[in-house]
Amino acid sequence: MTPTHSIPRLLAVVALCSASLADAAPLAKYVFFFLGDGMASGQIQATEAYLTTKNGGSAIKAVDLLNPDNRLNMTQLPIQGMQTTYDAGALMTDSASAGTAFATGIKTKSGVLGMDDTLTTSYKSVAQLAHEHGRKVGILSSVSLDHATPAAYYASVTSRGYMNQIETQLAESGYDFFGGGGLVAPTGAARSGDSENNIWDLLTANGYTVVNGRASILALKDRGAPEKVVAINETLDRSSAMPYAIDRPETNLSLAEMTEVAIENLYAKNNRGFFIMVEGGKIDWACHANDAVAAINDVLDFDAAIAKALAFYAKHPNDTLIVVTGDHETGGMTIGHATTGYSAYYDKLFGQSNSFEHFAANQWEAHKAKYESGYNWTADDNLSSNAEMVALLKDDFGLVWNDLNDYQKEKLEDAYDMSMIGENDNSGAENKLLYGNYEPIIVTITHILNEVASIGWTSYSHTGVPVPVFAQGGQADLFAGFYDNTDIAKNLSKAMGFRETLPVVK
Amino acid sequence: MTPTHSIPRLLAVVALCSASLADAAPLAKYVFFFLGDGMASGQIQATEAYLTTKNGGSAIKAVDLLNPDNRLNMTQLPIQGMQTTYDAGALMTDSASAGTAFATGIKTKSGVLGMDDTLTTSYKSVAQLAHEHGRKVGILSSVSLDHATPAAYYASVTSRGYMNQIETQLAESGYDFFGGGGLVAPTGAARSGDSENNIWDLLTANGYTVVNGRASILALKDRGAPEKVVAINETLDRSSAMPYAIDRPETNLSLAEMTEVAIENLYAKNNRGFFIMVEGGKIDWACHANDAVAAINDVLDFDAAIAKALAFYAKHPNDTLIVVTGDHETGGMTIGHATTGYSAYYDKLFGQSNSFEHFAANQWEAHKAKYESGYNWTADDNLSSNAEMVALLKDDFGLVWNDLNDYQKEKLEDAYDMSMIGENDNSGAENKLLYGNYEPIIVTITHILNEVASIGWTSYSHTGVPVPVFAQGGQADLFAGFYDNTDIAKNLSKAMGFRETLPVVK
Repeated sequence: MTPTHSIPRLLAVVALCSASLADAAPLAKYVFFFLGDGMASGQIQATEAYLTTKNGGSAIKAVDLLNPDNRLNMTQLPIQGMQTTYDAGALMTDSASAGTAFATGIKTKSGVLGMDDTLTTSYKSVAQLAHEHGRKVGILSSVSLDHATPAAYYASVTSRGYMNQIETQLAESGYDFFGGGGLVAPTGAARSGDSENNIWDLLTANGYTVVNGRASILALKDRGAPEKVVAINETLDRSSAMPYAIDRPETNLSLAEMTEVAIENLYAKNNRGFFIMVEGGKIDWACHANDAVAAINDVLDFDAAIAKALAFYAKHPNDTLIVVTGDHETGGMTIGHATTGYSAYYDKLFGQSNSFEHFAANQWEAHKAKYESGYNWTADDNLSSNAEMVALLKDDFGLVWNDLNDYQKEKLEDAYDMSMIGENDNSGAENKLLYGNYEPIIVTITHILNEVASIGWTSYSHTGVPVPVFAQGGQADLFAGFYDNTDIAKNLSKAMGFRETLPVVK
Repeated sequence: MTPTHSIPRLLAVVALCSASLADAAPLAKYVFFFLGDGMASGQIQATEAYLTTKNGGSAIKAVDLLNPDNRLNMTQLPIQGMQTTYDAGALMTDSASAGTAFATGIKTKSGVLGMDDTLTTSYKSVAQLAHEHGRKVGILSSVSLDHATPAAYYASVTSRGYMNQIETQLAESGYDFFGGGGLVAPTGAARSGDSENNIWDLLTANGYTVVNGRASILALKDRGAPEKVVAINETLDRSSAMPYAIDRPETNLSLAEMTEVAIENLYAKNNRGFFIMVEGGKIDWACHANDAVAAINDVLDFDAAIAKALAFYAKHPNDTLIVVTGDHETGGMTIGHATTGYSAYYDKLFGQSNSFEHFAANQWEAHKAKYESGYNWTADDNLSSNAEMVALLKDDFGLVWNDLNDYQKEKLEDAYDMSMIGENDNSGAENKLLYGNYEPIIVTITHILNEVASIGWTSYSHTGVPVPVFAQGGQADLFAGFYDNTDIAKNLSKAMGFRETLPVVK
């Protein structure tokens, strides 16, 4: 039949659908992609339970957990999706293949960046497309700027281990803002087969200004800041990463502060929009080590960076898109444990005052050094009669020796012996399960503290569970539904209105 | 400004939004709510990895995992959401409070059905509303029909343990179809304080026909079937539940077959639509026992029931809504394990031929009985020199003694001693962690088999991670986004176009 159209009838139809049109129409001029490395539903829920307990006491119940004040920004974004994370060769992806999926839209195998799994073809990332289309590009990470996730946006290499090659491509990317951690191999090969460029020289040659120190980095918000910058925090920890949020020195910017700097810097520089990728990279590292408190504090730090994007969104609601997800779960973190059943005690976590890594490098090293200089620890010696170690358990983790049960005490005694005698070779199945390649006593401490709170772990590696996606703003609807991680790159390109359909060969 | 409207301009706008209008407009006449008890992302991903391996060999990679032939029906539904599961009193809900949330839209505390957490007010379920609005109502479960999840749709009681009270309310519900497992306390009190009605008499008095046996149940598809029926499978296991899918006797209907019977029965009976709730209840039970193979096979069975709803949808696409979710995660199941790292070996799972429960009640009972009649097992005796037990490991679980590592052997020896000596009192923390309240040797067997495949467990209880929601059909958009489990009930009522906004006091 041929429909007859009257203006009133059509107006009624338009009224019905105006809301959905308003959401769908504007292309995203200012795009944020937030990536919590190793962050899936478990890490997010643990953080909300922690926050709820922090704000309201030890009882955890629905009315408090549902209170927006106790919720993360990310879970309050209106659009929600979920993505499968497996890579070309495995159920459990690594961050390189996951980063490649998010950035280029192709599946590759673990360890590879920006290339297919036969290592023959390189692909453009969505950041490169944004750059080619005249948008400003910012790449931020709490780990080193050449680490797998940030590198996926500018590098194509056969292995994530070729850090000097990756840094070379960073220097040649032409992108506008890099910020967060530092570089791992800026003056030589990271390993055999790698290039040996001086990256500091290359950056200068390519017009980059490298900025260090809190005041200098904050000054990048001002007009007149240099065109292309690499902003590296003053204090860096292992592998040139920013310290864990729980250990942050005052001189350093948080990920949120760095995000705010990038937003103001890039917004001031042009009117064609920007693409900013922000990685919370140490959620993953903390979860590898099964340290829930360090992970939770880094999720909070990551979520605070999202708040900066939301503040920008409030000023530019028609042009801004915010997408948040994780690349995979790490550690097999669960919101419950056999020894606590249906109860949760997140207040127990508040006793931990620094990350496993900070504790290892400071208190633990000092403690162990005393014994190594002149005393041979044997398995007959007891942790329980070692006043200094008992005090460390209490002062740094809130674990009171006499409150522990026999099973927990035995676990700690065994682990302490192994750490003091130094015999953890991690070749046997039992050690693989109990300690991974971490310091036995420290990983046992976080295991017990986490179990007491009701958090379990099953692995020191990534796991293969799908990861939620949260989105808000123009074109956010593209990120609803259940899909693959490669669809994220394709939809980011679509959201920005680029004519290119990813994947695009370089 | 006053807009000027021309027909061509309006037509263009209408064209733009016609797709979204078509999706949103029709109210759902035929509504399916599928509830996988204890099923969250881990259980779903494990099942897809199992299916992929079953269909394509032992290698697990993205191209195979993404193949629709290896995917479950549920993850292919177009709409995806996620719901928080905590209840009025805890981060980890139980099935009663979760069922109450899904059915009535209120938060209550663990163990309570259809009432608030002060136990003073009863609330109507969405099924009761559907019944009052003249729709046919079907309640299906693979566990007993008076169990927490199905009961939430017709009962209001202060405790899920009052099974005779619950069954009394079932008999008085007026609903049209109950099917799956049986009743736990049909002729007396389930426990002190419970009623003592004869439920079979009550069902008859209320016009119900109770049907047993495969042929009789299948005949309920035919026109002329009795108006109100309770269809109970011929063979029932512990607690009047249907056997695990992996153990199913040929005389029994699968959950899919029972779903098909309910659809045809209810569709034939009226033209005002229906509401059907289908619970896959033993996914949870298998996960409590940390038996991945039994859980996976019950997820497959549950997903096959969804296929029946999709077949109905294909015939009634404008009137049908399908919503699928789980009430909570059970067991802290993870898609990875410390001992396997980044590799997965799901083919190892194919060696398990029956559920932990079937094995316990049959092979294990027979094995143990031989020793109990005349031989005292001591901790000095070895499993490894017990040919019959070594054969059971191989025949029923595919575990070859000589292929196990020392750690696995030691775990099995310890557990076997404990099972044979019968000293597992589960009061100590170590036993709580290693065995829960399960038979030590059997739960250790499934732990090791699951770990070998790369599946970890952290608990024997429910855990608090949010659970995905999948939906398709009219009003399915209501189930997109990140929300609370109580929103499911509210949105189901909305999708059916009822004037009542849940929660509604009874």
